[in-house]
Amino acid sequence: MSERKELQSETGGALGADAETLRVNAVSAIAHFGPESPLTLDSGAKLSPFQIAYETYGHLNADKSNVVLICHALTLDQYAASRHPVTGKPGGWWATMVGPGLPIDTDRFFVICQNVLGSCMGTTGPKDIDPATGKAYGLTFPVITIADMVRAQAMLLDRLGIRDIFLVIGGSMGGMQTLQWASAYPDRVFAAIPIATTARHSAQNIAFHEVGRQAIMADPDWQNGTYLDTGTNPAKGLAVARMAAHITYLSEAALHRKFGRKLQNREKVTYGFDADFQIESYLRHQGMSFVDRFDANSYLYITRAMDYFDLAADYDGVLAHAFKNTKTRFCVVSFTSDWLFPTSDNRQIVHALNAAAANVSFVEIDTDKGHDAFLLDEPEMFATLRGFIDSAATRRGLNA
Amino acid sequence: MSERKELQSETGGALGADAETLRVNAVSAIAHFGPESPLTLDSGAKLSPFQIAYETYGHLNADKSNVVLICHALTLDQYAASRHPVTGKPGGWWATMVGPGLPIDTDRFFVICQNVLGSCMGTTGPKDIDPATGKAYGLTFPVITIADMVRAQAMLLDRLGIRDIFLVIGGSMGGMQTLQWASAYPDRVFAAIPIATTARHSAQNIAFHEVGRQAIMADPDWQNGTYLDTGTNPAKGLAVARMAAHITYLSEAALHRKFGRKLQNREKVTYGFDADFQIESYLRHQGMSFVDRFDANSYLYITRAMDYFDLAADYDGVLAHAFKNTKTRFCVVSFTSDWLFPTSDNRQIVHALNAAAANVSFVEIDTDKGHDAFLLDEPEMFATLRGFIDSAATRRGLNA
Repeated sequence: MSERKELQSETGGALGADAETLRVNAVSAIAHFGPESPLTLDSGAKLSPFQIAYETYGHLNADKSNVVLICHALTLDQYAASRHPVTGKPGGWWATMVGPGLPIDTDRFFVICQNVLGSCMGTTGPKDIDPATGKAYGLTFPVITIADMVRAQAMLLDRLGIRDIFLVIGGSMGGMQTLQWASAYPDRVFAAIPIATTARHSAQNIAFHEVGRQAIMADPDWQNGTYLDTGTNPAKGLAVARMAAHITYLSEAALHRKFGRKLQNREKVTYGFDADFQIESYLRHQGMSFVDRFDANSYLYITRAMDYFDLAADYDGVLAHAFKNTKTRFCVVSFTSDWLFPTSDNRQIVHALNAAAANVSFVEIDTDKGHDAFLLDEPEMFATLRGFIDSAATRRGLNA
Repeated sequence: MSERKELQSETGGALGADAETLRVNAVSAIAHFGPESPLTLDSGAKLSPFQIAYETYGHLNADKSNVVLICHALTLDQYAASRHPVTGKPGGWWATMVGPGLPIDTDRFFVICQNVLGSCMGTTGPKDIDPATGKAYGLTFPVITIADMVRAQAMLLDRLGIRDIFLVIGGSMGGMQTLQWASAYPDRVFAAIPIATTARHSAQNIAFHEVGRQAIMADPDWQNGTYLDTGTNPAKGLAVARMAAHITYLSEAALHRKFGRKLQNREKVTYGFDADFQIESYLRHQGMSFVDRFDANSYLYITRAMDYFDLAADYDGVLAHAFKNTKTRFCVVSFTSDWLFPTSDNRQIVHALNAAAANVSFVEIDTDKGHDAFLLDEPEMFATLRGFIDSAATRRGLNA
């Protein structure tokens, strides 16, 4: 793990460290997998070589029993509790959840968050160079699945000498990975918290993803995916994709509360196509800032992986069979105003777990913040997760 | 009305007529408004000259008391009950509602449906030639409002010598016009049926419209709105806009029932970006067929008019004041699965009408078909409207 130390000196050492990083003992690392360890994909293709970029927080205990694996959502990354290298945003996207004394307590747990396969923050994806051609993969990158992402994550844990995971947790696409982990590696997962997710991507969600992909592909600067070779960037198409998706992350109630029909720095409408309304200005900003930190082809690949996710499909359509004889303890969390992964989707997971006689608790949190609630300040969610995690930690002998 | 006769011979006469056209006595016409009758817009601009293209069905009775005005939605047009000249689709978009013996009975009523201002099916809009420059208006067309659309419609009725309207009816943006008609011309409207609409466009709906506009404007073929001069067409951008909007017209339940995760002419997923899923293929088709019949700039202008709609704004924010002392009989209709104009939006209209002591009935139709239910085969809606219209017709002395 020489590469790990090397990166540790970059961001975790005295020179590059900030207070936040030190507080959670953040370490940035990259693991390389050479020709000797190819990744076999669901499509039948093999990816080799590849690498996984990840962050760790806290310290691994002696018997390696305190590992928490955080799985991130579509456009997030490994920086769950550390400064983002591109945006400079401190604290990480889950700063409310991960840290000393927080529900995912870095004083007790060794937390790992890996950038998913196909993404663009260090783990191999379509923007990387294909050694076979010397050019960026673009659309020659193999199409991947949630199971492929999880298989790669397991290879990293193997590399780190970690067999057992105390807890796998994630929201949205992170919840899909959480379910996939519990299903594919039941003996390795002690507890699992899928949040605001589904076992099977819905037609409506596939439709929204398809709109985003078509927006990217409609941008002539996309160049059939070869924009990195041609020096262009489908920023406008990617921004439109992000804008459409962003609406689905919120709720009508939250939009009404936050923006309503408020005008943007003006007394009355201008009878034009400027951003008269604050909601327009907000959305445009969301679109424009996204393109600075995300790769358009990664957006295509990761949305596709989510579309393909149907955990029951490998079990004759019976979701309960995906969790047969599971010993994992589950806590399923949904939000009342989440219309992207509504409570009904999450309840189907609970029903399947019940049918499999699994140990499962289910909490629907009352909030108007929509799907994004899992990333926001939701005291009831914090209390729920703290209770479940503490109880599981006691069972696992981690609170001694 | 020489132009009316002239067109009548084109589509209503023996030569061009089809069975559908004859059945409803369809007449296509265009009314021209010259320099002597400019249209004064909410923005303060004056539009002149302009024209209105419209269809009529049935016959005007002797005392002109049997007029039904149908107001169309965003991307629809005047062809409510006649063959569409571009798509060739017979029957019209409201063939289930308008015809002999149907709720809007062409044997009893004289039905008028006007293409709205800013649209692209014959009424003046941004694709038409600005006589001042000899070029298509494009973005030099004045930004219009729902009130402007209604003001133009009133000018047409004046031209036709029609003062009183028995019934104004419309769904979605047609419902906005219906409300505007009842508010601006209370003495002229005997009955009004706003369906699946709102008195004030929500932040979420403005957001979806903004995504559509940004998709169009991101298309380099849009050429800042001058594409008609440059011989280009922002078809890809407009298709993306349509795809995003189309999702909002349906419901998750309807998408699940109709498509679910069914694959498109294949046994298994292809691990690629083709339309593996039927929902993808369907959406792409919706986008591509739309660009053949709609103008991209019209899409910008009409969505903007909807965004600006806030009927209470001219009444110190008190919607009830928009209907003060109204004598109009109202029937408000909403659909349980409509999340674009949810029942709560429609209920606000009902509350305001109640506060104004108006004669109002309200029906929420239980359906999983989403917003588009008003265009579909909804027996409960037909029964509701038939009952309300028949009762109002009796009151108006039209059933003698």
